[in-house]
Order: sequence, then structure tokens, then C-alpha cells
Amino acid sequence: MERKQLEPAAPRSGLSECAAAGDRLADIQQTDLPSLIAFFGAFWESYASDAVHGRVTPLDKSRILDALLGNPLPEGPMDAEQLLDQVRSMLAQETVKTRHPMFLGYVTPPALEIAALGEALAAVVNQNVAFATLSPLGTALEATVVRWLGEIVGYPQTCGGILTSGGSNANLYGLAAARYQLFGFRGAVDGNYADSRRLRIYCSEQTHHSVDKAAILLGLGTDGIRRIPVDRDHRVRVDLLRTAIEQDIETDVALPMVIVGNAGTRLCCAYDDLTSLREIADEYRLWLHVDAAYGGFLRIAEKPPCGAEAVYLADSVVLDPHKLLFVPFDCGSLLVRHPRHLSDCFGAEGEYNEMRPSGPLHDYANFGMQLGRSMKALKVWLALKRYGRATYSAEFTRLLRIAAHLTRRVDTDPRFERMGPAGGTAICFRWCESRCLREDELDRLNSIIRRTLVRRGAAFVDEVVLDGKTGFRLCMTNFNTDSGDVDRLLEGIASLASSLSRSGDWNREPT
Amino acid sequence: MERKQLEPAAPRSGLSECAAAGDRLADIQQTDLPSLIAFFGAFWESYASDAVHGRVTPLDKSRILDALLGNPLPEGPMDAEQLLDQVRSMLAQETVKTRHPMFLGYVTPPALEIAALGEALAAVVNQNVAFATLSPLGTALEATVVRWLGEIVGYPQTCGGILTSGGSNANLYGLAAARYQLFGFRGAVDGNYADSRRLRIYCSEQTHHSVDKAAILLGLGTDGIRRIPVDRDHRVRVDLLRTAIEQDIETDVALPMVIVGNAGTRLCCAYDDLTSLREIADEYRLWLHVDAAYGGFLRIAEKPPCGAEAVYLADSVVLDPHKLLFVPFDCGSLLVRHPRHLSDCFGAEGEYNEMRPSGPLHDYANFGMQLGRSMKALKVWLALKRYGRATYSAEFTRLLRIAAHLTRRVDTDPRFERMGPAGGTAICFRWCESRCLREDELDRLNSIIRRTLVRRGAAFVDEVVLDGKTGFRLCMTNFNTDSGDVDRLLEGIASLASSLSRSGDWNREPT
Repeated sequence: MERKQLEPAAPRSGLSECAAAGDRLADIQQTDLPSLIAFFGAFWESYASDAVHGRVTPLDKSRILDALLGNPLPEGPMDAEQLLDQVRSMLAQETVKTRHPMFLGYVTPPALEIAALGEALAAVVNQNVAFATLSPLGTALEATVVRWLGEIVGYPQTCGGILTSGGSNANLYGLAAARYQLFGFRGAVDGNYADSRRLRIYCSEQTHHSVDKAAILLGLGTDGIRRIPVDRDHRVRVDLLRTAIEQDIETDVALPMVIVGNAGTRLCCAYDDLTSLREIADEYRLWLHVDAAYGGFLRIAEKPPCGAEAVYLADSVVLDPHKLLFVPFDCGSLLVRHPRHLSDCFGAEGEYNEMRPSGPLHDYANFGMQLGRSMKALKVWLALKRYGRATYSAEFTRLLRIAAHLTRRVDTDPRFERMGPAGGTAICFRWCESRCLREDELDRLNSIIRRTLVRRGAAFVDEVVLDGKTGFRLCMTNFNTDSGDVDRLLEGIASLASSLSRSGDWNREPT
Repeated sequence: MERKQLEPAAPRSGLSECAAAGDRLADIQQTDLPSLIAFFGAFWESYASDAVHGRVTPLDKSRILDALLGNPLPEGPMDAEQLLDQVRSMLAQETVKTRHPMFLGYVTPPALEIAALGEALAAVVNQNVAFATLSPLGTALEATVVRWLGEIVGYPQTCGGILTSGGSNANLYGLAAARYQLFGFRGAVDGNYADSRRLRIYCSEQTHHSVDKAAILLGLGTDGIRRIPVDRDHRVRVDLLRTAIEQDIETDVALPMVIVGNAGTRLCCAYDDLTSLREIADEYRLWLHVDAAYGGFLRIAEKPPCGAEAVYLADSVVLDPHKLLFVPFDCGSLLVRHPRHLSDCFGAEGEYNEMRPSGPLHDYANFGMQLGRSMKALKVWLALKRYGRATYSAEFTRLLRIAAHLTRRVDTDPRFERMGPAGGTAICFRWCESRCLREDELDRLNSIIRRTLVRRGAAFVDEVVLDGKTGFRLCMTNFNTDSGDVDRLLEGIASLASSLSRSGDWNREPT
């Protein structure tokens, strides 16, 4: 904040490139349209067929990226054809191919073409879905889609909710709703100072990191979270949860606010015992928020993972369409049993009151932070209309079968060791055959195998550290992947492991 | 939270519509692609030419919306061609035409075609730009675009920032960064309880409502904000600001945290005296956050509005590409003088540490809340490459000229009365000729004129209440609008006013 830094950056000269006089922005863009349309159609077609073959990841040390990073703000316009050529090679060569069957990293599934179309159409019509007067259609679509998502988690038709940028913001909104439930309007005025005790969040050790980020943003701090240990199956220890709450009540230092349950933990897709969590929440009059970002969808599989059914018991639920509805980023959601749980909390008494519409359409500005919002609902609506619940149910069933196949393979092959529980779509395991290696060497070997796979573009898988051991996490959330791909990946790991072990080079490489 | 409500909604039967056995989601979608590509091209072309004529707003009482809202979650798949037909009519008939020259509501400019292309391409390649390993390209594009936006506000090349969903979240991030600057890591652990005094935000009465929403979410509460009166030009009263800070310091009840300055207020595009705000911030060691969501861009017009130049003095700046860079929703940004101002605050010590990349690419997960993020940077990059600074500068100059033309027309025509200051792109005024009317009747007449214009689809303009008077707000932020459109709108208002006044019916209508 020193004064001397505060000189505006000098404008660069670039007059030779300036737009010619009279080149009005609106005119240039009208002339462009036919080439943009042709370009997009050709690109989409070729990417759809190319990006499922070849390398999963781009080559390292890209000249394209280096050139990008050095680029100054352009002074004048660039020729449209040249620009489109540049974009074509950037996207073809430099993207991570999330639709490739060997992309199994994180819960980042490929997007459906019809959902990509939805996003493209939303960009063309460019509606602001914060206010019903500015987009009655977007508002009606979002209300519809929220109800459908509610149906997936077992909520009544009278539920409410909002589409968010993803699970992190949905967790944030859920915790904000919990705080409002506790403090009421007084909390909007007095903030966390409405009570002298600090607010407390209870969740398991396996809870997603975004809950920490939310606690920090909400001004509760990470000390506001009590992380309860889990059992062997990664489910929160209900007995310890109860003890923690009672301790807080007894000492009267902290004010219990919310229990965060998991329906599909990040690492191993474990489901907390939500029925018990509901009972405890009722007993102590706490909000029950459930992070079901991807695990909530598996509720409609033929044989849902144990515990998935009970998601509907939550007061608020995170469910991310950009995960298992296969719509492109960004698209999460926060669902609540009653719309007012969100509108009380986010519908402040501001300048926009005069816009509050009558009739069935409400302003989504009052359901979250954004006062300008794209029509995210269109892509979700298109995907659910085109495929229907039954097609998704069949796909989830298929993905769970592949996960079960992988689990069986790992459990019956002595060269592999499973890490953590199985039963959902995320499976953690490691290579363990090189038994002469020390534990830290085995960790290192697994880590190097993974990085080699990714660097070679053979597959994209995550690294996981569980109980101090390093291994792989595979997320079976890709509709282009089948069990043959999983078999090939296991063989790939095995063959890399033996060639690396033979050469011994891996143990000298810098990490 | 009563127990009896907590039965899961019964699944509906719909087996007759079920997908046929073997209809795997991946296969259906591959078959669809050619029709989706053809549909999109045809739709884009026709919407681009149709949506600039005819009605600006859809007809009221739409059967389409009624049908949408009643729709249950589809059980089986819907035929692609039928679905596309339905989407075509929905979007053609039911959208508010933001690209229509008579769309002048809020700061919701039309989107450029090349930016819509960028959004469409981002959906097809579906990258997660939270982590550089998951999208090196998206990360490099965002780093580039952030630097370019920094250049627009006069920041040094070493600045940092992140693309957000819009100005509201950017204001939220700016306030979060200010709090981190005050408390450091202690605030992340202890939250707002890190100090016994309540944190204080200072801003003018004309500051955007999103600052209230941010204060509530951050747990500071609206009582944490001191709204300082403005002068005749809607600029914050610097003397009163200083008094307020000194009062807080003296009584020691509140801990001054941040001054929020405006570079383009919501209502009248007024610019606070940022040089004075910088001096006060330095004197009391406060963070200076500036909301320049749309007003910051006008800094590069030929003759910037008075006060716009000084935006670079801020510690953090809100600048929304989905406003005056004309890219589609969602796209805001928060810029900071040093990248660590954001990464300190949002880069928690979580599970994702192992992903932290070496080299020039950082993980945007550590710069904001989202752990899954679309490639928003592509649309911004394409727009700035295609048009360059010079074309935007010419367009901003043109828009300011139209605003000046409107101001002159209103100021010289005795039938109109200007409300609030002029000088930027937002102009407030009212019809005032019917002098025999009482003030409240005049308010009502203006309100009814506006609603009639919108209902008839003739134009989209906002209603504004300033100093207790009701009028219109016109935002000159549409690149398809020219001064002839503004003239026609004024004549439309005049002619509606006289026909309404003559009939007298308006005064009997229910409001």
C-alpha cells in the first residue's frame, strides 16, 4: 500500500494496429457471424471424435502456453480467421481430454453434447436469471430444474433451491442458511456477533475441504469446525459426534449450529448414517446439511450404495449437475426443504424490492449472492428432457458395476492393495507387489507411476494419501469408460511398475 | 424439521416411456451430435437477425411458461427433434431480447458473438480451471486475461486476480481479502472472533446492494456497514467519511477494516474521489476496495468520466467483463495489486496441496471459493483479441456520446426533468409535464408509462426512485443502440404520457 507504487501503468503505443475509423464494434461482429457459426460446427464435430482417442493430457512445456502468458493487451483488432485458427490449435492440442475413456481424475465427468448445446444457446440469448422480469423463461426453467433435482434426492415438490457455480458455493449457501435458521434476521444485522458464543459446525474427518473454505468466508474460522473421526467405512462416528455436541453445550463456549453429513465423501464415496444424523439434529435442534454433490445422484441407481437413500432427510442438500448429470462447468445446486430457507437468508431488504414479481416466478437474486446470473438451468433441463431419469439410472448402475469390477480386480490381485472402503464410484488402491521396498519407497513408486501415466498422456488419475500410504484414486464417473478400459489401466500400472522397478531409475529421480 | 414430513417422495411410474434396453447414454449422445450442430448454427443465425427487431420483451401470460412449471421429472428419453423444436420456440418467443437496440435496462449489455462462441467452445472442451494440472490452457488464459483487465484499470503487470460469477462475488472477495489483510491467518482460524471489536466497512449511500449481501455472508452483518452520505454529484462526502472512521476509533467499539469506493455507482454512474479515499485509507491503514464493475472500463474511453482515471489507486477492484466487455453471463472479476492478496486469503492448507504446480501457472482454487471452474477466460480472451483495446475505446466513447445526447435532450426539453447527476452511461430522468398532477400522481404516471413500455415490448427501461421521486433509468451500455433510438424512446414516453393523461384511465388502474 506504499504510495510510490501507485502510478498508473503507462499506456503502450500500438497505433499502427488500431481499428480503422468507422469500424464500429457492432458492425464488425455482424460480419463475423457466418464464419463463427461454421467454425463452431466444424470444431465441435472434430473434437467430439478426436478427443476420445490419443493422449489424455497435453504435452508438457508447451510453446502455446508460453506465448499466451507473454501476450500484452491487444491494441487493435485481430483478423477473425487468424484468431479462429489459433483457437482451434489451442483447444485441440492444449486441453485435458475430459471425455477420453481414460480420464478418471477427480469427479470431473465429461459433458453431454446436448448440455453443451444448452450452454451455447444460453450464451447466445444472454439472459439475466437473477430477476424474473429480466428472464421469465430462465426463472421458470430454473424453478422446474430445482424441483426435478429435489425429486432425485427424494424431496417433496414444495422444496426450493438454486443453481450455483458448484459444490463449494452450495456448501457455503447451506451453512449460511443454517446460520440464518439459528439467528434469524438478527444475524443479518448483527452478523456472527449476534451471540457471544462462537458458532460450531460438526462434520466428519472425511468432509470436503470446501466446508473449511466456507467456514473461513462466513467468518466462523476453521476453529469453528469440529471434525469427528470416522469408522473403518469412512462414516462419521455417531457416538463421538454426540459427545462433541454435548461437550460444547456443557462448556457453553460454542453454540452448535449445523451438522454436515456426507453422501459420497470425496475420497471413497462413503455415506454417513444420515438417519442417525437426523435424529441427533432433531434432538439438539440443529440444521442438517448434506454434501451429496455426486453421491446424491447414485440414489436413483438400480442398487444405490448403502446409505444413499436417506439423503432426503437433510434440511439442505448439495447436488452438482456438473458432476453426475454430465452438464458442463459451472453447475452445482443447493436444495432446501422450503424455498424460504434460502430467500429469508439471501433476500435482503434492498433496492430491488420493487422488482419482486407476483405469481409463481420468484427472483433468484433473493436465493443467493448473484445479481447477474446466466441461464444455467437450460443445460440441465435439456439433459434431463433428452435422457430422462431412466437413462441416468441405467448409466449410474453401469458405473457402479464398473467400480465393483475394479474393486474385485484389485481385491483378488495380490499385486494391488485396496485403500479405504469401496461401494461407490470412487476406488482408492495402490501397487504393492515390490515387497522388497520400504513403505516410503512404495509410496514414491506409486506416485511416480501415476505421474508417468499422466505425463505420457496414457490416463488421468489422481494421487491419494490415505492412512499415510500413497496410491491412486479412480473415479468411475465417465460415461465413455467401460470395464475394458479399467483392465487396461491396471495392466498399464503393473507394466510400468515392473519396468520402473527393474531399471531402478525411478528411485533416483527428483520428486 | 418435524419428523413426519420426512418421508421420501414416492417414485412415479412411467415405465412405458423408459429407454429401450441397451440405449446407453454415450451411444444416444453420439447419434445426436449432427442434429445438435445443425440446430445450433441455424438458431444462432436466426436469433441474431430476429432479436434486434420486434418486441423487446415476451408476451405476458405465456402458455409455454405455465406448461414448463407443471412439468414432472421426465422418466424416459424425449425424441431429440421434438425437444429441439420446443427449445427453438421457447428461446425465440420467451426471452427478453438483450441485444435489441431498445433494451436499455440495468447494466445488462448484449453479448458479442465471438464471446458467445468462447462460451460454447468452453462447454465442448469442459475443462476444470480450478487446478493447473486439470487445465493448463484455461489457467494460462485466465492469468493472461486477468493481466489485461489489470491493464485496463491501470494496475501494474504484476497484479493478480480471478474471474468470478459477477460483481457481487467480486465485492465479496474484495471484502474477504480486506479482512485477511487485517487479521492475517489468525482470521482464517478464529474468524470474526479474532478481535473483540466488530469489523467496520465504510461506503457511500450510493454503494451497490451487493456490499450488504457480502457483509451479511461474511458474518459482519449490515450493522457492520457505515453508509456515508453523498454530495449533489453522488460522490461520497469525504469529510463525513473521515469523521465516521475517527468516531469508531475513538469509541473503540468497531475496528475499521475497509473503505469501499465507487467507480460508477449503480444508479447514476458517479465516481467517488478515489484520490482522497486513498489518502484516508493510507492514513488509517485501511484496505481500499473499489467497485468499478462497469465504470472501470470507461477509463479507456477517449474522454473518461471525471474520476475514472484513479481506479488504479485501489487495493482491490471489481471489473465485470459481462458488463462492458460484452461477454455473456457469468463473468465478473476481482483484481488485486498482488496475487498473494487473494491466495493468502483463499489458498487454505487443504488436501489439494499436492497439486500445487511449479512454474508460472497457479491453481485458481487458491484464489477463490470454487474447486470446479469453467473456462470463463476463453470468451474474454477472444473478445479482447478480436476487437482490441482501440475498438472498445471507440465504443465506450460512442456510448458516452449517446448518454451526453440523452442528457442534453432531457435538460433542454421542459417536459422532462433530470434526476441525479450525469456524466457516465447511466441517466435518470422523469416525465414532468403534466404539472397539474400532484407529486404522487406524477410518480404513478411515470411508473405506469414505464410498465406500459415494457409490457408492450416497445423498450426495456428501469424504474428508479431518487430523492423520493419516481422516474426512468436508461443505461447506455448497448452497442446496438444509437442516438436515434434514444430520440424515439423519448418521443414514445411523451406520446404515452399525453394519451394516458388525456384518458385519465391510468389513475384508476391498480398499481
